[in-house]
Amino acid sequence: MKLYEVAASPSCRRVNIFLKALGVEVERVTVNIRGGENLSEAYRQMSVNLKVPLLEIDAETHLCESLAICRYFDEITTNHQYLFGQTALEKAQVEMWNRIVEWQGLIPAFQAFRNLSGVYRDRETCINSWGKKVKSVSANFCHC
Amino acid sequence: MKLYEVAASPSCRRVNIFLKALGVEVERVTVNIRGGENLSEAYRQMSVNLKVPLLEIDAETHLCESLAICRYFDEITTNHQYLFGQTALEKAQVEMWNRIVEWQGLIPAFQAFRNLSGVYRDRETCINSWGKKVKSVSANFCHC
Repeated sequence: MKLYEVAASPSCRRVNIFLKALGVEVERVTVNIRGGENLSEAYRQMSVNLKVPLLEIDAETHLCESLAICRYFDEITTNHQYLFGQTALEKAQVEMWNRIVEWQGLIPAFQAFRNLSGVYRDRETCINSWGKKVKSVSANFCHC
Repeated sequence: MKLYEVAASPSCRRVNIFLKALGVEVERVTVNIRGGENLSEAYRQMSVNLKVPLLEIDAETHLCESLAICRYFDEITTNHQYLFGQTALEKAQVEMWNRIVEWQGLIPAFQAFRNLSGVYRDRETCINSWGKKVKSVSANFCHC
């Protein structure tokens, strides 16, 4: 197995924190996102969303999305940590809180960064007023 | 158990489609969102995000978030449909595709509706230019 990643990406860090908690080691490959490596034909053959992280399970089987990768490792690793919950209620509560943090905190924060930082100016239309609005949404969420 | 809902809400419809597939019946309570019932003190006592759907498991235990509610019913209902997948790979693939559809299709569509329709004009600052941008993102995703 190989994990394609960019060390600084929050989604890759999420997978790394999860793997560390499980005690799992996996081969890493650094992707040059700035250089557009994730948009190359070779990457397209592996990834349906052209993002990092990407897990290569075997030459034919790949997984995108940080949470899907975490869930896969949780399932194939014998462990008693139950990071996705143990009972029906716990599993649902993990799902609930994860979604609340993502929808009310992470997504506004990502959108604020993309629209305000200038980093994405070369690849998409950045809308300053939206960036400011979601920055305050995310900040209020983090303080609550 | 009681399911608090608004029939027209996409998130409530998602739960209803899921429950129908499982063959589960549950008592329903319609919430008057337009009248602000979800912002009342009584609703606050039950819900951490003040949204629909909301599942009351018992007087002390409530679940928000459509996917968390679906996962809960999937866990407590004896069934062989494996709507969240059966093997480790299937479970991860369901997670992956669900997230891709939500992040690239549903979230832009929700944001386009909120910013362009005028329905939310009385409760939040609507940003037309952002609405137009995410509308095209969502439309392109739906066509791919």
